[in-house]
Amino acid sequence: MTSEFAWIDRLRDRFPAIGDDCAVVDAPTGSLLLATDALVEGVDFTSSTPLADVGWKAVVANVSDVAAMGGEPRWLVVAVCAPAGTDLDQIASGAAAAAGEHGCEIVGGDLSATGGPLVVSVAITGSVDGGEAVLRTGARAGDTIWVTGALGAAAASRYTRRPRARVAEGVAARRAGATAMIDVSDGLVADLHHLTRASGVGAALDHVPVADGATLEHALGGGEDFELIFTMPAEVSVPGAIRMGTCTADPAEQSLGGDPLPPAPGFEHRF
Amino acid sequence: MTSEFAWIDRLRDRFPAIGDDCAVVDAPTGSLLLATDALVEGVDFTSSTPLADVGWKAVVANVSDVAAMGGEPRWLVVAVCAPAGTDLDQIASGAAAAAGEHGCEIVGGDLSATGGPLVVSVAITGSVDGGEAVLRTGARAGDTIWVTGALGAAAASRYTRRPRARVAEGVAARRAGATAMIDVSDGLVADLHHLTRASGVGAALDHVPVADGATLEHALGGGEDFELIFTMPAEVSVPGAIRMGTCTADPAEQSLGGDPLPPAPGFEHRF
Repeated sequence: MTSEFAWIDRLRDRFPAIGDDCAVVDAPTGSLLLATDALVEGVDFTSSTPLADVGWKAVVANVSDVAAMGGEPRWLVVAVCAPAGTDLDQIASGAAAAAGEHGCEIVGGDLSATGGPLVVSVAITGSVDGGEAVLRTGARAGDTIWVTGALGAAAASRYTRRPRARVAEGVAARRAGATAMIDVSDGLVADLHHLTRASGVGAALDHVPVADGATLEHALGGGEDFELIFTMPAEVSVPGAIRMGTCTADPAEQSLGGDPLPPAPGFEHRF
Repeated sequence: MTSEFAWIDRLRDRFPAIGDDCAVVDAPTGSLLLATDALVEGVDFTSSTPLADVGWKAVVANVSDVAAMGGEPRWLVVAVCAPAGTDLDQIASGAAAAAGEHGCEIVGGDLSATGGPLVVSVAITGSVDGGEAVLRTGARAGDTIWVTGALGAAAASRYTRRPRARVAEGVAARRAGATAMIDVSDGLVADLHHLTRASGVGAALDHVPVADGATLEHALGGGEDFELIFTMPAEVSVPGAIRMGTCTADPAEQSLGGDPLPPAPGFEHRF
């Protein structure tokens, strides 16, 4: 057993900004982006998931939320609620690696000893450099629908060790004039529905890119691919992204090749 | 049982900024303050604590971290990991009331259905308007030591229903020239030790203000009073605050009326 304050001293070696009631950073200009995502043992990962991968994924889920606004991740705070004996160093090392990989920094945290499942709750602050964040609400009928890469790999493998958030792709989509954007966290059908519902449009897809080793079902229903879906004015094309279809005027339409898409099978918590 | 997305729709009525991958706010000028604090059932509250009070306290613990820097709270994100059947509306109503009382806003959140104890993890973004945040590290030998109010009430009552963070008091201390500051979350002895250790000084107290109904032991060891301890240059006095003593050059000194203070009995998690 290690005491909380001894852990904090060790973590401070890894995260120099930690150590006061708050971290102090210089405010960027423009817009701030704020989000939080928590991972829970037994829901988002299992007791056999390497703890470094849990730390990594908790950071990436938050970075992906910033990427989905066309923003850049800046600072993270990490609250860990852990049973006695949990190797906090492993969680910290994975979280630090993910932050480094995505160009952001862990500046604060909180530790609680619990009897329950491990919870890693991360909050992120991002920024938009010289432009407007891309919301879910801006898609218009006639806009084209794009995705940053093939889908379904996470669902097909059931486990992606160290997924990467699409920060550069999200910034590129914003700069190209994306009208709406979301990341694929619950599955293509579910997340496309979130976007089209928020924008008041329908979606007519003619192509869904399926990852190697995955099926169309994996691509439509599987979450956690961390690809970005975005919409663009009809005349604009985006190098490197894949065109899937068009926004329609009928908010009830969700189709692929003229056939209705299955009801969103994306993961949903129930309370 | 209510689905996650139905809950999100209901919560959006209460928190209009929620609904995209990130909340978008205008960056303030100057410094940003970032912190996180999680409350766990069985550790920070019991299964009989009213859920509205849990939401309130989770927000106040975070606001207090901003107050302890001399800053003003701006935006909060709230991640709730809850067993099925938890009344999320109660948590939300208490959190919203606390945010409103302290002049800040809940702009984002995350919901996870778990089998474990209820966890309410909050992260806060604050700002410092036209000045420097007050760290723990700036106290110098000869500085005076102050507290914003009497201590021990929370420990004496074992339960403070809706504590208030000392935001205005923290801003006033910063503007008056406070050299170091911390909030009393672990207990006076523990938190004063954090401050003096970070600053490399000792503390010679001659007076500890004890709350009505509390003992000196409550005042020294009890946490969660949310009062602020701060240090000031010797010549400055702070109206409304209570002078407790003086910083000394010997980092090992922690005394009250010339006698050594007891070892810090403040709460500490063990992993």
